[in-house]
Amino acid sequence: MSLAPAPEANPADVSGVLRLDAPVKLDCGRTLSEVDIAYCTHGHLNADRSNAILICHALTADQYVAAANPATGRPGWWPRMVGPGKPFDTDKYFIIATNILGGCMGSTGPSSLDPATGLPYGLNFPVITLADMARAQAAFVKQLGVERLFCIAGGSMGGMQALEWVKAFPERVFSVVLLATAARHSAQNIAFHEVGRQAIMADPDWRAGAYALADVRPEKGLAVARMAAHITYLSEPALQRKFGRELQADGLSFGFDADFQVESYLRHQGAAFVDRFDANSYLYITRAMDYFDLAQSHGGRLADVFRGASAVRFCVISFSSDWLYPTAESRTIVRALNAAGAEASFVEIDSDKGHDAFLLDEPGMISAVRGFLSASARALGL
Amino acid sequence: MSLAPAPEANPADVSGVLRLDAPVKLDCGRTLSEVDIAYCTHGHLNADRSNAILICHALTADQYVAAANPATGRPGWWPRMVGPGKPFDTDKYFIIATNILGGCMGSTGPSSLDPATGLPYGLNFPVITLADMARAQAAFVKQLGVERLFCIAGGSMGGMQALEWVKAFPERVFSVVLLATAARHSAQNIAFHEVGRQAIMADPDWRAGAYALADVRPEKGLAVARMAAHITYLSEPALQRKFGRELQADGLSFGFDADFQVESYLRHQGAAFVDRFDANSYLYITRAMDYFDLAQSHGGRLADVFRGASAVRFCVISFSSDWLYPTAESRTIVRALNAAGAEASFVEIDSDKGHDAFLLDEPGMISAVRGFLSASARALGL
Repeated sequence: MSLAPAPEANPADVSGVLRLDAPVKLDCGRTLSEVDIAYCTHGHLNADRSNAILICHALTADQYVAAANPATGRPGWWPRMVGPGKPFDTDKYFIIATNILGGCMGSTGPSSLDPATGLPYGLNFPVITLADMARAQAAFVKQLGVERLFCIAGGSMGGMQALEWVKAFPERVFSVVLLATAARHSAQNIAFHEVGRQAIMADPDWRAGAYALADVRPEKGLAVARMAAHITYLSEPALQRKFGRELQADGLSFGFDADFQVESYLRHQGAAFVDRFDANSYLYITRAMDYFDLAQSHGGRLADVFRGASAVRFCVISFSSDWLYPTAESRTIVRALNAAGAEASFVEIDSDKGHDAFLLDEPGMISAVRGFLSASARALGL
Repeated sequence: MSLAPAPEANPADVSGVLRLDAPVKLDCGRTLSEVDIAYCTHGHLNADRSNAILICHALTADQYVAAANPATGRPGWWPRMVGPGKPFDTDKYFIIATNILGGCMGSTGPSSLDPATGLPYGLNFPVITLADMARAQAAFVKQLGVERLFCIAGGSMGGMQALEWVKAFPERVFSVVLLATAARHSAQNIAFHEVGRQAIMADPDWRAGAYALADVRPEKGLAVARMAAHITYLSEPALQRKFGRELQADGLSFGFDADFQVESYLRHQGAAFVDRFDANSYLYITRAMDYFDLAQSHGGRLADVFRGASAVRFCVISFSSDWLYPTAESRTIVRALNAAGAEASFVEIDSDKGHDAFLLDEPGMISAVRGFLSASARALGL
């Protein structure tokens, strides 16, 4: 499974799967002996290996940040941000994107085969944390030949991974871009995740997580989970602007079909999701997010977490209509960074697009990240 | 089924079921030939029958506004607002509360027997609207001997019923109390309802609505629907204040049990709900709310709806942390009332309790309603 090209080959676009050299010790106390990390890289690692950027994906995304996704046939999920001449400039930087531990796009997760049994893990997969994900990424990056990242960037759960890097490996990070994220998961966000998990586990085709053995999938439950979550990624004004009370047909059906365009849209989001995502991965990743509380190990003192990272440069961006990780969460991070003596620039982008704004065409975000990376590159002498 | 006592008897507390004298014509074009309305009354109708107040309930409530609910054994749902000396003073007013058409607490709904088949309606029940509910209520109130209401009051969907009364029967209403409501259902609210319906319909025990014939109930799907909806009834700050990230036990379980108190709370909300509510009623009532758009018949001009109600007095109350029916929705109503020349007092109550604040101990709401009713009683010479 060690499909990684030697980084010296410097291919412009690579995707593959790398088996980690060593087992990964997990926060739960268990150890995963065989861990594969699926990844894509873009651009070229420079001679002194100082231009690498790790992009961390959100809950349901993957390593296909800038390459066509073979599962969907669609382009990468961050087309405005990654590519030649884009803020994450593949002409200048070596872009690394990995599928997270626990994911379902090639990295080891609950749908992988358990070496102990030869069968899919299902619920025998250990419950993982954001710190576990970062630990596996860090081992991967080192194995790729990169000791220190020029930048680590991520939105939403991607930002949480970046924060775990800052906590565990501050010396391996020069700069950090955090978008639409938080230093811990709120009660409301735990609640929404729990709804999604209950929807999956209520589906009889879930089979206590062992659906792969029965060759079925809890598609209805996973679709409901996605629909509930999807609402939280948008905003009320954006839903009103895009759909309002517009109907699919000329009049009301007086039935339970999708009369309203917003219903049809949601159903489509649910149906499309089950085609590309594994239900158990959804359970494990949402659980990891719920468990995420960066400062819990430091008595809730977030600034103490950042003491070791005072030399790291941060760019923190929030979006005004994001009610999943509202601006207040970003301000909490920035205040703690300031208290720890780290350099942090912060901007709230005025947008009605809700949480998903970080994935969309937001000129303010694009220029802020571009400016931050340019300044950071100058500071490092890149 | 005509269990209504003659209003002359003036009993202090009555509950019963009344068969309407005439069929109810519905917006969908169908007619319900046999309609029962379950109700409670409190206090005494005065000699000139001018002191009646109709209280309209929200999605999952019922006629047990001030009486112990036989299904749950719990007290009525509005204890701070209805009773002797309370704003809806049973020493002074004759309080009427009915279970809505489509409900499951004794009024005709999808779990009722279809007279055409002798079997539960299930999905053969017609899709109803808020206007249909108001039409059935209006027939019930007239049959009870009350031509004109001193007041009609409701929170959330209860307010929507009150608005339909104002539109259809303005001459039968002297004053109106609207709490935490809107003149139409937003795209985001339709979306949340659709998630709930999909959760119910995804449950194999739903059996295309015919679960009663199979002696099963889609309990898991209904519980998920309730959990998703319940989050929207609260607010992020209230969830943070009540639960935060507090755990059930000493540490994380690294599993999928309810580690967090907020998860346990939500699961309890789901479980308790399925014990008292019918899944098909949930489908029909959410559908009626989604269809609700008071001004759609008037080209979207809400003020035109209110032209016939310029003699009606209104009290409109919103809650600052209600994100289901935010203050902006109430302001839209008030502006239209003003434009139509109706007298409207408006107050936004500062509260972190979210949408459900109207059911809770909110002194500002209690005193505002008390003051409005006293002034209205004086104006009517009560």
